[in-house]
Amino acid sequence: MRAVDIIIKKREKRELTEAEIEFLVEGFTNGDIPDYQMAAWAMAVLLNDMSDEETTYLTMALARSGEMLDLSDVAPMVVDKHSSGGVGDKTTLVVEPIVAACGLPVGKMSGRGLGFSGGTLDKLESIPGFRTDLTMSEFLEQLRTHGIVLIGQTGEIAPADGKLYALRDVTGTVEAIPLLASSIMSKKIAAGAQALVLDVKVGLGAFKPKMEDGRRLAELMVAIAKLTDRKAIALLSDMNQPLGRTAGNALEVREAIDTLHGGGPADFREHCLTVATHMLTLGGIGADESAARERAEAVLDGGEAWERFRTLVVAQGGDVGFIDQPERLPNAPLVETFVSPQSGFISQIHARVIGETVVELGGGRAKKGDPIDHSVGIEVLHNVGDRVEQGEPLFTVHANSEVKLAHASTRVFSAYTWSDEAVEALPLFYGVIR
Amino acid sequence: MRAVDIIIKKREKRELTEAEIEFLVEGFTNGDIPDYQMAAWAMAVLLNDMSDEETTYLTMALARSGEMLDLSDVAPMVVDKHSSGGVGDKTTLVVEPIVAACGLPVGKMSGRGLGFSGGTLDKLESIPGFRTDLTMSEFLEQLRTHGIVLIGQTGEIAPADGKLYALRDVTGTVEAIPLLASSIMSKKIAAGAQALVLDVKVGLGAFKPKMEDGRRLAELMVAIAKLTDRKAIALLSDMNQPLGRTAGNALEVREAIDTLHGGGPADFREHCLTVATHMLTLGGIGADESAARERAEAVLDGGEAWERFRTLVVAQGGDVGFIDQPERLPNAPLVETFVSPQSGFISQIHARVIGETVVELGGGRAKKGDPIDHSVGIEVLHNVGDRVEQGEPLFTVHANSEVKLAHASTRVFSAYTWSDEAVEALPLFYGVIR
Repeated sequence: MRAVDIIIKKREKRELTEAEIEFLVEGFTNGDIPDYQMAAWAMAVLLNDMSDEETTYLTMALARSGEMLDLSDVAPMVVDKHSSGGVGDKTTLVVEPIVAACGLPVGKMSGRGLGFSGGTLDKLESIPGFRTDLTMSEFLEQLRTHGIVLIGQTGEIAPADGKLYALRDVTGTVEAIPLLASSIMSKKIAAGAQALVLDVKVGLGAFKPKMEDGRRLAELMVAIAKLTDRKAIALLSDMNQPLGRTAGNALEVREAIDTLHGGGPADFREHCLTVATHMLTLGGIGADESAARERAEAVLDGGEAWERFRTLVVAQGGDVGFIDQPERLPNAPLVETFVSPQSGFISQIHARVIGETVVELGGGRAKKGDPIDHSVGIEVLHNVGDRVEQGEPLFTVHANSEVKLAHASTRVFSAYTWSDEAVEALPLFYGVIR
Repeated sequence: MRAVDIIIKKREKRELTEAEIEFLVEGFTNGDIPDYQMAAWAMAVLLNDMSDEETTYLTMALARSGEMLDLSDVAPMVVDKHSSGGVGDKTTLVVEPIVAACGLPVGKMSGRGLGFSGGTLDKLESIPGFRTDLTMSEFLEQLRTHGIVLIGQTGEIAPADGKLYALRDVTGTVEAIPLLASSIMSKKIAAGAQALVLDVKVGLGAFKPKMEDGRRLAELMVAIAKLTDRKAIALLSDMNQPLGRTAGNALEVREAIDTLHGGGPADFREHCLTVATHMLTLGGIGADESAARERAEAVLDGGEAWERFRTLVVAQGGDVGFIDQPERLPNAPLVETFVSPQSGFISQIHARVIGETVVELGGGRAKKGDPIDHSVGIEVLHNVGDRVEQGEPLFTVHANSEVKLAHASTRVFSAYTWSDEAVEALPLFYGVIR
């Protein structure tokens, strides 16, 4: 078997066999197949696509490139979730404690923010002392002891995916849907997931803004789960406007804490309960979806979910004083609220513009490894569809310099579109793929 | 400017600017842009194509990566030819002496055989002592002194093309028509050509068998010539059956010598005279095409072309005794003629099968650098359209082992397709693109 023949086959839109895909991934992992052949192949995949079967072979080859965790002793059904990323997406901080509090252990590997999209690890690191770099044995130990753990991706899980992602990043092939799907699924499968809730964002602040692309990605991941005898459900979630009211690391942790205390914005609470309900249902907690939902609401409103979040923070070295008094979390030196320049209905709050402004404020990264300021961010005080009067508070900017504050306010104003006519609120979800 | 953005632009089918293409080629040549980015870009070009203008920018960027020869002191108009390769294509051996004998100096850089296609350098090296590795100054000196010189590609001419070709060879991107066109044209332009005859083969034994691909390649090369203020004419030539009667290095040199003495197969003679006529016309020799044709016939039949071939061999160190008595050229130990198994009309002699059989006999290379046996090859005794009786000689195999002889005869028999009905002869040319 020769790599060049496999490249040519994909170039000619022919379907690759399991053996061919394994040959590629194994060769790439051990260095026999050079970057330039993998890059040409990735571009051929991006432009010529892959079938569900090919993508599944790729997923499993990437997963098998490293350790394959077996968590069957931890839970009868190991359920994980994945979000495709977006602006203000602090869902994990609320959903994992709910699910754990319902008796389903959750061990999750999360990512960092990149570009306009935030990352769960960065948000958690707003809490002084919180460690996300646990070793694999610490991860397993905490999962067994506390039923909840949240760490970064480790080099032991799907190392070929890490290598391939780095190559895709510099060869214009990140966006290939089969490569996105197999990258996500390989890590989840290697980390021991037997069931998955896939929170696929579509809209202005999503990585794949187009509904058709989001749907394709969601369908492909559900197909991979089926072809590998796993359970999965995918939600097509709105990401046209930021999720909840805040974007920025410490601000989002405060909003998650509010929500864990039974408060928080209604849309964000509902989003979390929906995701949690699906995870619980897949995990066999509750007789059906409505029973699972009731259970999720009960632990959220009863404080058990909050207690589980506290347990997580303590277990990973975070200073619990900062979450018990969230006003102590990093505060930006400059906080200014801006008022609406007009009266009318909000017809758009461009999520990507909000996300990019958070990066410009210092709360995100232009490139991997950049330092971030956890205190800065934006509070968006209304949702699309709201009627706002001229002079009414519209958004608040948390900044670390006057120049950035001024620049950010101008950009955030530009994110709004107005209408004289009434505008419908955005749905939270556009569909469910099972 | 970032290479990844240029890759993405081409991936999205947008047209690249001259500055972007120069940035890519310069970065690739000096090592700033790694192979994997160039490979992803090449695959995007193969699948998304390039415009005439983009291909011209690429051509000039590749040409400028090394020395740009100025031969304007050698001839008022420097005319070169290029063949896209095929089976039995010994045209250069006859055309260059004709053109030189007509007073138009020709200095050509040729290639080696690869796969089923033979190469002019290998053919010439059938002549003991013949050197094809002249230095650039020896090349220029011989061109000025003798008006004819034939060497291999040197590292000084379009080095970026050599580097890019090596990468394309292992990344499944050789076949991209804009990359083929710019590779050919960059070397010719860097070597000083002001006018070009492009002999583009189509049919079973061509690199681009399909008429539409051959036409596109020919049109693109003519467009590049126009956009760079050079003259070009492209012929779409038949390569369904071998050109002439022989395929194999020493056999082809003998056939070229026959032709230079006024003999040789009619189709091959006609092919050579047509190519030579176009070169002479472009070079301003003869008032028009028919005058140029007369002149070409005159030097071929009058012996001046043969004398010029002899001059070439002497100048490059070849032992002229071997061409004066071509029976002394390398002879295979086993020569066997096979007769027709049936009576009928020949409707196909699959050129690629013949070419591959020559490689299997040892007369060509499976991969670069393989040694070759100059003596072996195949003589095809009829053309498509000929009526042949059962038992009549059909082809002759020149081999260096019994096993190879037997295998070759089986394969050559399989190259023939027969018809009971009369079959039209194949045309020599399918079109001319100016």
